[in-house]
Amino acid sequence: MRQRNASQKAFSRYGNWSILPRLFINPGEHILFKKLVLPAALLAAFGVAHGDEGQWQPHQLPQLKSELKRIGIQIPAERIADLTKHPMSAIVSLGGCSASFVSPDGLVVTNHHCAYGSIQRNSTAEKNYIADGFLAKTRAEELPGGPNALVYVTEKVESVTERVLKGLENTGGKARHEAIESRVKALIAECETDKSVRCSVPAFHRGLEYYRIRQMMIRDVRLVYAPADMVGNYGGDIDNYEWPRHTGDYSFLRAYVGKDGRPADPSPDNVPYKSKDFLVVSAEGLKAGDPILLAGYPGRTSRYKLPAEIRFARDMSYPAIVAEYQADLDTIAAATKAGKNDEVRYASVVKSINNRMKKTQGLLDGFARKDIAAIKDVQDGEFRAWYAKQPGVSSSMLAELDAAIAADMALEQQTFAWNVATNSDLFKSARTLYRLALERTKPDAQRESGYQERDLAMIKARLTRLEQSYVGSVDQARFVGGLQRYAKLPAAFRPQGLDALLPAVAEVPTLYRNSKLGDTATRLALLDADAATLEKSDDAFMRLAVKLNGFALALEERSKESEGNLEKVIPQYMSAVIAWKKSQGKPVYPDANSTLRVTYGTVDAYSPKDGITKGPFTTVEGIVEKHTGKDPFNAPRALLDAVKAKRYGRFRDSVLGTVPVNFLSSADTTGGNSGSAIVNKRGELVGLNFDSTYESITKDWYFDTAITRAIHLDVRYMLWVMKEVDGADNLLKEMTIRYPKK
Amino acid sequence: MRQRNASQKAFSRYGNWSILPRLFINPGEHILFKKLVLPAALLAAFGVAHGDEGQWQPHQLPQLKSELKRIGIQIPAERIADLTKHPMSAIVSLGGCSASFVSPDGLVVTNHHCAYGSIQRNSTAEKNYIADGFLAKTRAEELPGGPNALVYVTEKVESVTERVLKGLENTGGKARHEAIESRVKALIAECETDKSVRCSVPAFHRGLEYYRIRQMMIRDVRLVYAPADMVGNYGGDIDNYEWPRHTGDYSFLRAYVGKDGRPADPSPDNVPYKSKDFLVVSAEGLKAGDPILLAGYPGRTSRYKLPAEIRFARDMSYPAIVAEYQADLDTIAAATKAGKNDEVRYASVVKSINNRMKKTQGLLDGFARKDIAAIKDVQDGEFRAWYAKQPGVSSSMLAELDAAIAADMALEQQTFAWNVATNSDLFKSARTLYRLALERTKPDAQRESGYQERDLAMIKARLTRLEQSYVGSVDQARFVGGLQRYAKLPAAFRPQGLDALLPAVAEVPTLYRNSKLGDTATRLALLDADAATLEKSDDAFMRLAVKLNGFALALEERSKESEGNLEKVIPQYMSAVIAWKKSQGKPVYPDANSTLRVTYGTVDAYSPKDGITKGPFTTVEGIVEKHTGKDPFNAPRALLDAVKAKRYGRFRDSVLGTVPVNFLSSADTTGGNSGSAIVNKRGELVGLNFDSTYESITKDWYFDTAITRAIHLDVRYMLWVMKEVDGADNLLKEMTIRYPKK
Repeated sequence: MRQRNASQKAFSRYGNWSILPRLFINPGEHILFKKLVLPAALLAAFGVAHGDEGQWQPHQLPQLKSELKRIGIQIPAERIADLTKHPMSAIVSLGGCSASFVSPDGLVVTNHHCAYGSIQRNSTAEKNYIADGFLAKTRAEELPGGPNALVYVTEKVESVTERVLKGLENTGGKARHEAIESRVKALIAECETDKSVRCSVPAFHRGLEYYRIRQMMIRDVRLVYAPADMVGNYGGDIDNYEWPRHTGDYSFLRAYVGKDGRPADPSPDNVPYKSKDFLVVSAEGLKAGDPILLAGYPGRTSRYKLPAEIRFARDMSYPAIVAEYQADLDTIAAATKAGKNDEVRYASVVKSINNRMKKTQGLLDGFARKDIAAIKDVQDGEFRAWYAKQPGVSSSMLAELDAAIAADMALEQQTFAWNVATNSDLFKSARTLYRLALERTKPDAQRESGYQERDLAMIKARLTRLEQSYVGSVDQARFVGGLQRYAKLPAAFRPQGLDALLPAVAEVPTLYRNSKLGDTATRLALLDADAATLEKSDDAFMRLAVKLNGFALALEERSKESEGNLEKVIPQYMSAVIAWKKSQGKPVYPDANSTLRVTYGTVDAYSPKDGITKGPFTTVEGIVEKHTGKDPFNAPRALLDAVKAKRYGRFRDSVLGTVPVNFLSSADTTGGNSGSAIVNKRGELVGLNFDSTYESITKDWYFDTAITRAIHLDVRYMLWVMKEVDGADNLLKEMTIRYPKK
Repeated sequence: MRQRNASQKAFSRYGNWSILPRLFINPGEHILFKKLVLPAALLAAFGVAHGDEGQWQPHQLPQLKSELKRIGIQIPAERIADLTKHPMSAIVSLGGCSASFVSPDGLVVTNHHCAYGSIQRNSTAEKNYIADGFLAKTRAEELPGGPNALVYVTEKVESVTERVLKGLENTGGKARHEAIESRVKALIAECETDKSVRCSVPAFHRGLEYYRIRQMMIRDVRLVYAPADMVGNYGGDIDNYEWPRHTGDYSFLRAYVGKDGRPADPSPDNVPYKSKDFLVVSAEGLKAGDPILLAGYPGRTSRYKLPAEIRFARDMSYPAIVAEYQADLDTIAAATKAGKNDEVRYASVVKSINNRMKKTQGLLDGFARKDIAAIKDVQDGEFRAWYAKQPGVSSSMLAELDAAIAADMALEQQTFAWNVATNSDLFKSARTLYRLALERTKPDAQRESGYQERDLAMIKARLTRLEQSYVGSVDQARFVGGLQRYAKLPAAFRPQGLDALLPAVAEVPTLYRNSKLGDTATRLALLDADAATLEKSDDAFMRLAVKLNGFALALEERSKESEGNLEKVIPQYMSAVIAWKKSQGKPVYPDANSTLRVTYGTVDAYSPKDGITKGPFTTVEGIVEKHTGKDPFNAPRALLDAVKAKRYGRFRDSVLGTVPVNFLSSADTTGGNSGSAIVNKRGELVGLNFDSTYESITKDWYFDTAITRAIHLDVRYMLWVMKEVDGADNLLKEMTIRYPKK
């Protein structure tokens, strides 16, 4: 399944350089994120508010009033800024994906790939809802979405910068990092009054500002309708990041709550959530040049990087990461050859690595195409020249910044090496268990983030889910492969002291023979074990985790020190950048951080090279054109017939003469924006975001107005499939649809 | 060099099924044409005058008056119909390419690839005009174009149908074929009063009409200016048939005549030809949607084929031809590995086979993409239904037509087999010499066309030119390869009696050892030998030619019989098709036959697949985008610098903001249209035709309005290179250029 646009939480700061350690083992998503080190250092680059760049905090929109007016948005900017009012109050998060309410009865529309887990868990060999799609004709037929199906409704956003940073002006390093962490934890604990409330205190502008966000978490979410995989995932991995695109990437969920209207554990007694707001759906459609607004939860961008960081990613970390991914894929391919079942077990792992490799390769291709570092050199030079002329500024700030970043990049290399050396799900399971036991000895508020009481359910779910994508022999091959590659890394990469602690390749088979952590019940039984018990364990991987713990903690400490230094200087730097931009009359948006953002743009084609134009629309005829009868180009017969008969119904676009499928816009999106509502100038739903073009991949670093385009589902295609192919009349009736005048 | 759009004379009727016999050995062009059989059978398909389809005889244009007006052409249709008046009197043929006068002093503009031979023959290691380009700053510096550089000015076109066909109403078979051939030869002989006059009597509508065309042939043609190869051939074979395109495919020649104003042998005493007409050049440019006219000499199309013929090409002949080309290429590649020089010698042969293979494969791809046979089925069915209802029509005509075509297709297979079996340049040389000796025993008028006195110079030139691309060991390998492939052909393909006459593979080395025909002087010495002398020759290949002569002549006789039958029935059929179209108010254009035609269209992009648009323009920035510094993407430094400095001068397009390079139009072109003038609504030169897109290749069989696009050089790019890169100010001054208002 396409995760490309689902939030890549904690995608590391130097281009995912640190592939591991996965303290959370999450082979389904397989995002090898970095928890040792908090996110940091996003600098320079200067998000200039030209074109359609900008993932704006809703409260910033009044500053962009004239821009919104210029492109033709009719909703007042002040209104969009108010999260308690339409249309923003209809926008929700699914945790990693975005979505929106489309009826007063809690009906939610999002991407097909965002609801994939729920579809999958309800599917059996007899009732294959992935292949055939699923439609609940009545509410009674709606299916449980599973423990990961959650709807987050943002209720309150408040500035807490003062409470997080007060008195830390001159503190740096680990002391600063831990002080901030502890205050953030306290702010969260104060806010999370019951289990229906989830709070977070994300940093904006890399620590210049902090907001506390309170969300209502609805935990009974049911699957209502999903089209067949060959609609929802038409084109599959081949079309991933590609245009022309013909993917019906949509599905419907419904939020349920207790009879008291508050979130409740899943229960047949629950009732549909009465969403106080929802989006009207417009079948009137868009044409090239029309304005759109897009609201959702973009995961992470790096628009404020310094030129040195771009060069590090381009020349060092990305090439190493691509090579590492490829080597791991080769190992998995060879190791899963024996048993056919093994290949299936690792399919989602492989898919996920492939997807991330394609993204990283896309970034490298983009860097090769356009010298972004050189562009940033110019911007950085201009900023530094301006800064030098300002009265009363710190003369050492820029030097301190450069030094902190250089130190952090060096540390990143070592973290990468650690990750390569510990490429084993058994090791990571053992490490998670032991670390949890260590943390549990502290009061909850003082525990490392990710190991608090609030995190236990998530850890358990991940340790459980591992069984779906674990085979001992394959894991062993991956561990051996990693150790061999680690041994070949340049000496500067390899952290001091690690070589001596790692097992020899020849010892690895013994480790696997002498470990029972491959058994799910064994893993889960250790969730409550205390540290002393685990230290006495004779399980080979638990012993290895205990042996490596000191080293891992030390690496973590170095990371915290580095983080703290960055957290001290970057806010100063960002503050200066914002002042510089302000002197030019330009507002500055913070990098994406999985919080609610609004972006705007127009329906627009682009030119990938001279003489070729792509988009802005594809049509249902293109589905027939691509149809081969074989996955991933195997459209349902009923759909092909409807196209052949030109049964376009009320969804025919008068300019195109047929039903549009996908379209491109210039809006500024990234991973996490999957499922984001796209609304027209009046705030009516006209599309769902689900991907961006290959040429756009570098936008996470630099928004190139000329070529950056997001790929959206045209809501007319969704409605057309519902009407002409799937007969989802009950849902068409439930939604408020504005049809074009005849 | 790209020959794709140079006329493919005698491209055989069933999709070049008959690769051989090459009675004319022409390794430079390496078009394996068929002379045993006159062109024939172009049926069905019905050239419907919708969209921009149609290669019209100039005299037909008044019928299209309203169409021309509709698209915005301002020159009266009657005026375009008059070959003696502007603009048509400025249009000339180079024999295989098209061109036009652009000054009153005989200055001719055509494609770079059309003047390639002249550039090449003047180039040396010291003065490499291919790599560096060539510019004569004064007339004294203009270089001789060589014996193949000829300018044909059409002086008179008259209908001679009556004189060709009178009294042959009921005659068919070989008798008809020979009667027509003899009358045509007489008509030519009567017309060619001196060596400055070349006449031809081509058949139109496959023998329904005949016109005698008298052309003045200017034989002192000099090279004036050619840009560097990396302008004129930018993109090389990689970009062949492709879009986006960035080729400056232009060059300038000048026609010289004797002091009396009549054509004369090349001489320093000659003077520039005072062209009574020339085209004004417009630098005002075109924009998308603008109308254009295109005048030139398209070689051959097959728009009136029957569905059965399309299926034969698609399922039988084209796949066999592609396989044969590939096998021959493989043989050449293996055989030329030894000597580096061998590879160079065969480079143009390989290029030419590759080019034709790409075209044939493009046709197959096109057939796979669109079921043209099915479309033609519908048209054919409609025609037959209409025909059945007409009073007094022959009830047997359609049956006779189908039978004649079926017989001819069967014969084509055998001709193909013969060609595969005789894939040797030495054999073909021997056969040419022996056949010439046999024909020479007859009075000139009775000789086989191609072996008359008027053809001797051409035969000699070809036998001479062979030395540039002949290596004994390679030719031997190709002959062996052909014999081996012949032996594997289905029995039905192999003509009766041929197997026994062919040499065994084991005998081939002996043949090559015992032949001196690889020596040019030996070949040329035999040009005057009589048949008896050759029959006594102990040269192994001459003996083989004599041995196979009876068989070859018999095959030729069968072809003439088949031709005659087609020549009898097809005119009846075409006459009925024209009447049918007339009943619908639609004029019918004849298939291309290397005679002067006019086509019109608009500057237009196209969609190769849903969601993608190509064209209509490329720009100089695209050259920089493609530039790698390596052939074929190695643009001259001066050009790159001019683009970088945005030195667009007066050639900047106001919409594109830069200088356009190539553009697409919907005009109807084919091979032979290379160098064709493209004029704007006022008749001013705005471009040169030089290629068409890959998706357009099937247009020779079926003009698909939606995707067929010709590729043109924008004259503004030519003028810009002349001004900013090559400093060809003398020529800019000589031409009459209309610049845009500032």
